[in-house]
Parts: sequence; C-alpha cells; structure tokens
Amino acid sequence: MITAHEVQLVTRPDGAPRTTDFRVAEVRVPDPGPGQVLVRNTWLSIDPYIRLMLNDSKSAVFPPFALNGPIDGAAVGEVVAGDAVPVGATVTHFRGWREYSVLDAGDVRVLDVDGVPPQAHLSVFGTTGLTAYAVLTDVTPVRPGDTVFISAAAGAVGSVAGQLARKLGAARVIGSAGGPAKVRTLVEDLGYDVGIDYRADDLARALADAAPDGLDLYVDHVGGDQLDAALTVLKPRGRVALVGAITGYNEATPTLSTRNLFAAVEKELTLRGMQVTSYFDRLPEYVELASPWLRDGSFRVPETVLEGIHAVPEAFVGVLGGANTGKMLVRL
Amino acid sequence: MITAHEVQLVTRPDGAPRTTDFRVAEVRVPDPGPGQVLVRNTWLSIDPYIRLMLNDSKSAVFPPFALNGPIDGAAVGEVVAGDAVPVGATVTHFRGWREYSVLDAGDVRVLDVDGVPPQAHLSVFGTTGLTAYAVLTDVTPVRPGDTVFISAAAGAVGSVAGQLARKLGAARVIGSAGGPAKVRTLVEDLGYDVGIDYRADDLARALADAAPDGLDLYVDHVGGDQLDAALTVLKPRGRVALVGAITGYNEATPTLSTRNLFAAVEKELTLRGMQVTSYFDRLPEYVELASPWLRDGSFRVPETVLEGIHAVPEAFVGVLGGANTGKMLVRL
Repeated sequence: MITAHEVQLVTRPDGAPRTTDFRVAEVRVPDPGPGQVLVRNTWLSIDPYIRLMLNDSKSAVFPPFALNGPIDGAAVGEVVAGDAVPVGATVTHFRGWREYSVLDAGDVRVLDVDGVPPQAHLSVFGTTGLTAYAVLTDVTPVRPGDTVFISAAAGAVGSVAGQLARKLGAARVIGSAGGPAKVRTLVEDLGYDVGIDYRADDLARALADAAPDGLDLYVDHVGGDQLDAALTVLKPRGRVALVGAITGYNEATPTLSTRNLFAAVEKELTLRGMQVTSYFDRLPEYVELASPWLRDGSFRVPETVLEGIHAVPEAFVGVLGGANTGKMLVRL
Repeated sequence: MITAHEVQLVTRPDGAPRTTDFRVAEVRVPDPGPGQVLVRNTWLSIDPYIRLMLNDSKSAVFPPFALNGPIDGAAVGEVVAGDAVPVGATVTHFRGWREYSVLDAGDVRVLDVDGVPPQAHLSVFGTTGLTAYAVLTDVTPVRPGDTVFISAAAGAVGSVAGQLARKLGAARVIGSAGGPAKVRTLVEDLGYDVGIDYRADDLARALADAAPDGLDLYVDHVGGDQLDAALTVLKPRGRVALVGAITGYNEATPTLSTRNLFAAVEKELTLRGMQVTSYFDRLPEYVELASPWLRDGSFRVPETVLEGIHAVPEAFVGVLGGANTGKMLVRL
C-alpha cells in the first residue's frame, strides 16, 4: 500500500468551473489484487468532455462523477506492480487524474511506444486523433478536392483534423481559433491554408472570403455563431460533423444551438453527430496509417503541458477557456 | 387571344402575408405559338414554399417573384389549344395561380388520370407525395419496426407521410397537429397511432409518453419547439429529415432553429435536409407503388378545397396559418 494524490470533485460547478471546485487529496492506493495492475501515471489527458460529467445529469453517455470522489480521465503510465501485465510496460487507461491507478488488466491497453512519445497515445494516437479520423473517414468523409472548415482548429482534435483532412485529399483547409497567436499557428505550424480569428472577424464574411466557392465540409466543435456562419457558406449537399459544443458545456444542460438550419433544407445538407467511443475498433488502422507521418515529421502534434498533479484543476479550467494549443496534458 | 384572371404579387409581405398583398387581375392570354400549348387550369396547388419567393431574396432555390407579375405554382389543367400536345389531354405544370397558362410543350407533363382524380397529381402523386416518399426511402429511410414522429402531420406532406411510413414498415407512427379536430383526424382518418396537439400539450412529455422507447425517425416540417422536443426523445443513431420550416417562413430570412443540437452529438444523430426537386426522377416508381393503395382505398388523401381564382389569396394565407387538413387546393 502506498500513499499518493488524486483529483477529486468538491462542488458541482455552476457555469464555468473554478480550480476550487476540485481538491487534490492524498489517498491510500491499495495493492493490486489477482488479475490487477498498479500503474504509475506519467501523463494525464485533460479534456473538455469531463465538464459534462461534473453535472448531476441523467446522461447515459456522460454519467456524473460522485462528489468527493476521483475524476476518471484518460492517462498513460507505467506498470509498477501486479501479475497480469509485465512490470515496466507502458499502458493507457481511463482511470487517470491521479498519480497511481489500480486497474483490472482488461481495463488497460499496452502501448507500442517505439518511435512515438508515450503521451502521443493521449493525443494524436488517442481518442483525440481517432475523433478526427472517424469524422473524416466515416461520419462525414472528406473527398478529394474538398474545401473544409474546422472550428477550434488549434485545439486537440482540430490540430489533428486539419492536417489529416489534407492528407486525405482536401484541397483547402480553413480553421478558426481565438486570437492572433493561435491563428498564426494554424497557418505556420498546422498546415491550414487560412486562419480565421472568431473573436475579431465578421465570421460569415471571413468564411465566404476564405471559401469563395463554398464549403464542402464543416467540422464543428463549438456550435452557435460558427455553426450559423458555416451553414450559410456550405455548398449544396454539404456536410457537417457535430463533434462537440465546447461553448455550451458550462450550461446546466449542455447547449448546441443554431438559427440557420433552414440552410440545411434549402441546400440538402447533412449534419451528423458522433461519439468517439463508437470508433475504438478503428484505432489500429488509424495508428497504422498515421505512424509513418508522425515518424517523418509531416504530422505536427502540438501540446500544452502543465507539470504535476496539483496543476490538473488549472489545466482543466484552461482547456475550457481555450488556453491550450493542441492537446492539453499534465505530466507527472 | 382570350381574357382571363391571374394572381399577381402587389406588395412583398412583411411577416405573415395578407390577402391584400395579392391582386386577382384580368389579363390577355396570348395564343400558343409553335410548340406551345394553351392550358385551361382546373386545379391550383397552394403551397407554403411560395411564401419564400415573395421576399426580395437572393436565394437560388427560391428566387423571388416580380412585383406586379404572376405567381407560379403547380397546377393541373386541360389542353385547349396548340399543336404540341393533344387537345383534351390532362396535364400538370408549374405556371399556375392563373386561369389559363401558355406553356412550351416541354414544360407540361401529360397525366394518366385513369382511376385517380386529376388533382391527386398535385397532392399524393405530386411534389407533396413525392416529398414523403423521398424522405422515407432516401433522405432518412424508414426501417421495419421504426417509431416515427411527423410534425404538421395533418398537412399536405404529413397526411401522406404517416400512411406511407406504415406501408413501408414503421411499427408506430406519431403525428402532431394544431387543435383537437386535427388531432382526431390524425388517428381516425390518417392512420396515426397517436396524435399530439402541439398547441396544448407539453410537447417533450407527450412525445416521450407516445414513444416510451424513443424515436427512430423524425420528419420535421416546423423546427423550433417540435424539433427541440424530438431531438430529446430520439434514440441513439436516430434520424431527422429536415423538410420544411413553416413556422419560420414569414421571417425576412426564413428561420429554422434549435437549441438541442447537442443531442445530435451525444446520440450520434443524423439530420438531413431535402428538396423535392432533386427527386423528380423517382416520381414514376412512387406512383407505381402507391397507385394500388389509392385504388383500393387504403391510402387516404384529405383535401381542403376553395373555389375559384379569387379564393387563391385566402387559400394561401390559410395554408400558412394551418387552415388546411391535407392538401390545400383551389378548384377553378
């Protein structure tokens, strides 16, 4: 038995969460039983969807965490004890936001970390990258020559999706982000043709200027004004992937709204929602496809890294406020 | 050359149209030239989409009618002169809202009126019925065992769609309409299992009660509250056909809105818009499928009929306000 820290939920946030809604508590970590492993976590994934699970909601997809209990997030770590997985193996699992996790062997996945850094399995090779891959190959497949618009383009999914869209044949990739620094990153580091500052620009006009022939595909992470603008600029038979609604996550009931859905009638648009959990079986094919790009450096994986378990609440408040470029991670 | 009446647009309505926005004018009808026909119209189709073409909009799909010019709506009539189509033939065309139309032969379609009344080619065998057929077989195909919800269920499309959904295998068909009389019609005449009064009921609750296991498919003609409620009650991977937005047609820019699109993310829903003009090539297969049902009386085709060209403005104001059960028609 060892003693270690975990992040607990203290109060259910009303609106935007504050760091004081969480507590970093010292807890006793039991020894692993038969068929279990003890994992020393080295990287924690900090994701907006966790916000949905802080509410006392009835959602089957995002069930609530218990008050005064730990938060489960994705993590990467090293097996340090147990009889079910070799000690020393690098694994990923969904019992993170703590320094040590005890898990059934079936709840960890052993990683091949040859040639890629282990935390890549939380970003480009984790649910983040898989989300982009599922969107662009199944939910609303990108087609050769497409003009694609991606919101939250400097975020964890967006930073992968823009590059992946081009690898899969898109002719023009437009991204939006908040503030000039991120917009510059889109074009200079992440392969976007055009970056739009959603805070500063007349969005519909900027989008129409960036896509004079219209959009074929919009990958939506935000809803609201950006979805409204994209619906206006989409071509007939255009497609929209509904991936998230980060601007609405802080409401008591998460909200994704639009006033422009008549454009879908007029232009015969298709809008499709997705949950990455439906695509876990496609992770191996995606990793096989993308591994060479990662090794040859043609696939950039930006990260925003904070240090230590005590930084988790700050990292989480930050990711909801757009403080990150690329994946938000905490290194332990 | 003869003299006859046509319906002209006098003022572009601001909000809900009034009968005084139109003028029934006496005009000279030219003799048909070579390759043309003169049609004496017998039935005029009165459709909500015409409202979109009264605005001075830039829409390519719904281009504006000229002020002081005639309105083009669908019609059925009889060829009375011309060398291109046999005199006496019953035809349909899109230059209605007038007593006589002169058309190129390529702009009329000769009808087989054997066994069905001619005006059926404006309703169940016209764009109205074809809309329902395209929705249920292509846009968002109905599957055996589905629970289906249709708004504006007593309207022109809805009155066909409910019956067609069941013919195509739906297990349970729920419709909404305004007022107790229409709701009764849904169940007693139009084959709906449940009728919901959208004006009187708590919509989301009524829908959840009517579909305790959730909806597989929602055919939306209205947007707003009914779309919000349906999104709440749809099952995972459920489907929404976006067919119209009659509640928003009177706005300067036609509006279809929802605040519940996060349900599409959470439940991986698909929403698809449609324009019936994309499906005209499928009309023959649909007519062949549905003709026996019409002949054996198992397909009910309700109509609301007004008499005479002077009734057209009233009929149009009425169809936008829900005065019709089934197809709104004017008989000349």
